[in-house]
Amino acid sequence: MMVKLAIFGTGRIGYVHALNAAAQPDATLAYVVDPIDSPARTEIAARTGARIVEPEAVFADRTIDGVIIASSTDTHAELMLRAVEAGKAIFCEKPISLDFKRVTAVADAVKKAGTPCMLGFQRRYDPNFRFVRERIAGGTAGKLEHVVMHTRDPSPPPVDYVKRSGGMFRDQAIHDFDMARYLLGEEIRTVYAVGACLIDPGIGAAGDIDTAMITLTSASGRFVQMVNCRRAPFGYDQRLEALCSQEVLYVENRPSSSVMIADTRGFTTSAPMDYFIARFAEAYAAEMVAFVDMLTRGTAPLAVIDDGVEAQRLAEAAIRSMETGNAVQLAG
Amino acid sequence: MMVKLAIFGTGRIGYVHALNAAAQPDATLAYVVDPIDSPARTEIAARTGARIVEPEAVFADRTIDGVIIASSTDTHAELMLRAVEAGKAIFCEKPISLDFKRVTAVADAVKKAGTPCMLGFQRRYDPNFRFVRERIAGGTAGKLEHVVMHTRDPSPPPVDYVKRSGGMFRDQAIHDFDMARYLLGEEIRTVYAVGACLIDPGIGAAGDIDTAMITLTSASGRFVQMVNCRRAPFGYDQRLEALCSQEVLYVENRPSSSVMIADTRGFTTSAPMDYFIARFAEAYAAEMVAFVDMLTRGTAPLAVIDDGVEAQRLAEAAIRSMETGNAVQLAG
Amino acid sequence: MMVKLAIFGTGRIGYVHALNAAAQPDATLAYVVDPIDSPARTEIAARTGARIVEPEAVFADRTIDGVIIASSTDTHAELMLRAVEAGKAIFCEKPISLDFKRVTAVADAVKKAGTPCMLGFQRRYDPNFRFVRERIAGGTAGKLEHVVMHTRDPSPPPVDYVKRSGGMFRDQAIHDFDMARYLLGEEIRTVYAVGACLIDPGIGAAGDIDTAMITLTSASGRFVQMVNCRRAPFGYDQRLEALCSQEVLYVENRPSSSVMIADTRGFTTSAPMDYFIARFAEAYAAEMVAFVDMLTRGTAPLAVIDDGVEAQRLAEAAIRSMETGNAVQLAG
Amino acid sequence: MMVKLAIFGTGRIGYVHALNAAAQPDATLAYVVDPIDSPARTEIAARTGARIVEPEAVFADRTIDGVIIASSTDTHAELMLRAVEAGKAIFCEKPISLDFKRVTAVADAVKKAGTPCMLGFQRRYDPNFRFVRERIAGGTAGKLEHVVMHTRDPSPPPVDYVKRSGGMFRDQAIHDFDMARYLLGEEIRTVYAVGACLIDPGIGAAGDIDTAMITLTSASGRFVQMVNCRRAPFGYDQRLEALCSQEVLYVENRPSSSVMIADTRGFTTSAPMDYFIARFAEAYAAEMVAFVDMLTRGTAPLAVIDDGVEAQRLAEAAIRSMETGNAVQLAG
Repeated sequence: MMVKLAIFGTGRIGYVHALNAAAQPDATLAYVVDPIDSPARTEIAARTGARIVEPEAVFADRTIDGVIIASSTDTHAELMLRAVEAGKAIFCEKPISLDFKRVTAVADAVKKAGTPCMLGFQRRYDPNFRFVRERIAGGTAGKLEHVVMHTRDPSPPPVDYVKRSGGMFRDQAIHDFDMARYLLGEEIRTVYAVGACLIDPGIGAAGDIDTAMITLTSASGRFVQMVNCRRAPFGYDQRLEALCSQEVLYVENRPSSSVMIADTRGFTTSAPMDYFIARFAEAYAAEMVAFVDMLTRGTAPLAVIDDGVEAQRLAEAAIRSMETGNAVQLAG
Repeated sequence: MMVKLAIFGTGRIGYVHALNAAAQPDATLAYVVDPIDSPARTEIAARTGARIVEPEAVFADRTIDGVIIASSTDTHAELMLRAVEAGKAIFCEKPISLDFKRVTAVADAVKKAGTPCMLGFQRRYDPNFRFVRERIAGGTAGKLEHVVMHTRDPSPPPVDYVKRSGGMFRDQAIHDFDMARYLLGEEIRTVYAVGACLIDPGIGAAGDIDTAMITLTSASGRFVQMVNCRRAPFGYDQRLEALCSQEVLYVENRPSSSVMIADTRGFTTSAPMDYFIARFAEAYAAEMVAFVDMLTRGTAPLAVIDDGVEAQRLAEAAIRSMETGNAVQLAG
Repeated sequence: MMVKLAIFGTGRIGYVHALNAAAQPDATLAYVVDPIDSPARTEIAARTGARIVEPEAVFADRTIDGVIIASSTDTHAELMLRAVEAGKAIFCEKPISLDFKRVTAVADAVKKAGTPCMLGFQRRYDPNFRFVRERIAGGTAGKLEHVVMHTRDPSPPPVDYVKRSGGMFRDQAIHDFDMARYLLGEEIRTVYAVGACLIDPGIGAAGDIDTAMITLTSASGRFVQMVNCRRAPFGYDQRLEALCSQEVLYVENRPSSSVMIADTRGFTTSAPMDYFIARFAEAYAAEMVAFVDMLTRGTAPLAVIDDGVEAQRLAEAAIRSMETGNAVQLAG
Repeated sequence: MMVKLAIFGTGRIGYVHALNAAAQPDATLAYVVDPIDSPARTEIAARTGARIVEPEAVFADRTIDGVIIASSTDTHAELMLRAVEAGKAIFCEKPISLDFKRVTAVADAVKKAGTPCMLGFQRRYDPNFRFVRERIAGGTAGKLEHVVMHTRDPSPPPVDYVKRSGGMFRDQAIHDFDMARYLLGEEIRTVYAVGACLIDPGIGAAGDIDTAMITLTSASGRFVQMVNCRRAPFGYDQRLEALCSQEVLYVENRPSSSVMIADTRGFTTSAPMDYFIARFAEAYAAEMVAFVDMLTRGTAPLAVIDDGVEAQRLAEAAIRSMETGNAVQLAG
């Protein structure tokens, strides 16, 4: 069985998804959609044979099996609803919308229609994070008792991006919220968050924060602690510790080089890979394999529409906690 | 100038302090006090020449310059007050008392009398933690923006100890509260803590917790995140990350061995030193040097009476936060 | 400018070269040659559009600019000579021939004809080894004083392979001999080698060794020490230490995972990537870029025909040293 | 049983041995001997109660059970012979003499008289090296196949010291020669060594080398590779790799600090402990325990007189190999 796909958006992540989709033996990338005539749009068309079209052409083409939505966040919800209507399977980048009411409405529509839908939480597809999850699930590690996660960007994003991002909780920490649920295998009941602009005054002027600390308590009473930050002095810092009764599982940073230099200062190993597209290259490739598998074999993906809803619910709660200074309780 | 000292208590930490005190060229350990006729008491007397006496003998001897209080917690406050009265300088192990009102009362007495007094926050004297503090103070690291600390014991303490300990916040986390203040160089204004008994049901039955996550916000709006736990599957876990604008400073665990073993599982390095007495051997030795320096040269110690009060104030706030589910504000 | 290439051989390394060649924007892979109708041959043809032909077709086609020789070792010399005759540029895997007289004869022919020729010492194109070379060349590291190299395969190769390989010195250690010359930037004058079959009796029965220790002295009197082995208990072990006057540069193994596991045994990090094709993926890709650059822009490659001759000269000397028990002097 | 000891020599190592000997519960340090009225001699006497005497007084005192010889190398042989004559047990620092004929003569005298004698190869008493030896002996690691050792001093010793040292092979590499025998558990049959003065011209002017590479072949055909050097750019470099059939055992350097610093250069861990007295503090303490145990309980020490002879035999062979350019065969 061969599936026909279309991609919306040709930014950094759209470019990666387009090439990964086209590389699947069981899939053809038929269309590429982007309102901007970017070099990436041209290159994708040239390298994959996809035609550059308007959105309408995608939804009107009954031979298209699935759409990959990697366009700007403000277009996600509408494209998803049109895909539901047109009966196309969906792969969508997070977040679904910055408006949480809209998120739940879209999710309801997807679920009501039974549209196959996969969310772009690529960390679930990273071999390292997945190993941790499976080792816990397999029982080797013993009982998971608490989780610590650190996510720090190499440097603050442009203020322009910050303004459209929905804020650090919805934009960056959402991946950690998702990972917390993925590892614990249960829902979060209490969220406490503090946040401030300690690094880049421009981010503060745009109404956002660049540093946050979050504590989560799960339904069964286990804990998660998160640090989210828009800078690390050495580059991209993306680590996890899962404390289990028999062992601790750590996901460490991936070094950008195998060279170590020793001098009077000591032993210096390389800074981590500092571009998320490179750090998660295997995860992005695995996502497209999973999307095609969902279409051709009905394999359930690791991240579905409700994962997007629940991760964002935690982001919304964290914002409320930060604003009120109190922990926020979520209904069971 | 030669000083004469007396030690109260000959448990693990008392034993270490006694030998370290006696090893100072400028000090004599004249008396050792312990109501129990322990082998350690006998050995200390034999190795240092100290006489085994009742407390009264210490306070009545006008030639005694200072007392080292390492007896059980419930005796600290009274011994300190007697030392104040008798005009002896004080080195006291934390905590001063499990009753915070008593802590502040003792502190008031010490300060009113002008008694030279040093508290046993040995981590301040550890060369690694001290290096971090001095590197930040010296400006090399840039501005300290946030701190993350992990403290996990090798295994849960005996329930009997737990019952007398005042609980994990006052007994274990107090060192991290102190370190937070030491590194930030300012007071904490908000404390949020969650805690639970996730590991050892016996601890829960004794009314204590074995796992806690704490978030602190400082007066100037900087953050500290702490994990405190009564077990790590591999042994003693005692780490710190200080995120500064120019660099990150990490205090890592100290390995117990320099041997690495490689096989099909990968590369295995040794578990950390798992006994705090060994891990902090240099720090304990430095404390006694500092105590004698305070007496002979008037050198200010790194941890004074108010550091004990403030660290415990944070422990009390953490308990209140855990019990109420809300963040606790501390007056400025 | 667009170049047309042909590949000989579709084994593991031929497969990689074929796809890397075809991926170059400035190159077309026109032909694939392999006497065996392997699945790889079919796949290469399908994915790159190359036609499956006999060798004659390649050399007869005047539009072919270069040939990539990745066929079995016993065919290298003849294919190179035919390429020289037909005026095709050459990329050839090492070794040129197991018969050293033949190696020098082929090299003479290549040089006499002025055929652009690049040898497959991929380690020179690995970003880590290259960094070390450039840092030394750039002067930052100070003067290079001695080099230590360890190369251990994950497990002994099939005896069948061993028999055709020319022995461990010509097959495996040749890369280290090349790296020694690459880093030192001068020729070797003395070679001492010991070798034995300590691991796999089948290798001994086939007349080869599985463990060797080699010491090289350069023309200017600097030293290189090498361990070469057909097994490491944990997988692929491929490391280098370059001792310079200002710093030491280490190329370490590349871990296969970012997960670390801690338990009572200590902290276990992953075994290294154990398949050379994966470990050196970037290097193989860079080789094809360099081959096309040589053809389109005249850029000199990092490894030329004389590098193949000299590395093999050291392998021959090592064999002689092992057989005689004495160090072998090479003419200046 | 209580033993009475005397120490010869109060240099760096004599000072350590004196205090360690005096700290034994079963031993008294009765005499300290040093022709120079050094502050260390005075301090040892003051701290241990030992009397400062001439050598004659030691050998004349029939109550003295053992002597610790840590004086300058040129006095070792004579002091040992006098101890043999006087019936005192011996602890002697290596080497016994720079004249190998003298070494064997002293060894013969010691063995003929049956004098209990222990040599100062402290590395055998280091917990890390000892662990490796015991793990191999215990069978867990499988069969030991080859060994790699690196020993680099932090910086070249004073030329004055070099002149009296007997050269780098007898002075520094002798510890590695001993370790090779200790781990292999058999004798060495072939020695190949190259050496040169690459670092400090002063050492060359004094007729010594500062860099050497050595290959050993054991009686059963196993290999050892050693690098010995008078400098490492980062400090003291003292490592070992023991390649066994089931696992590799590494003894790594011991870091001087637990602080790691991360910035744009990457992650920097501390240089190793750079003073051998500190690096091997536990080993030196264990040696004195073993010396006293030998006297009080007859426990066999880990390094006996023949270990000194055989290690030095390898040093002599290495010198001959370096001078002739050929491997040196040793009789079976």
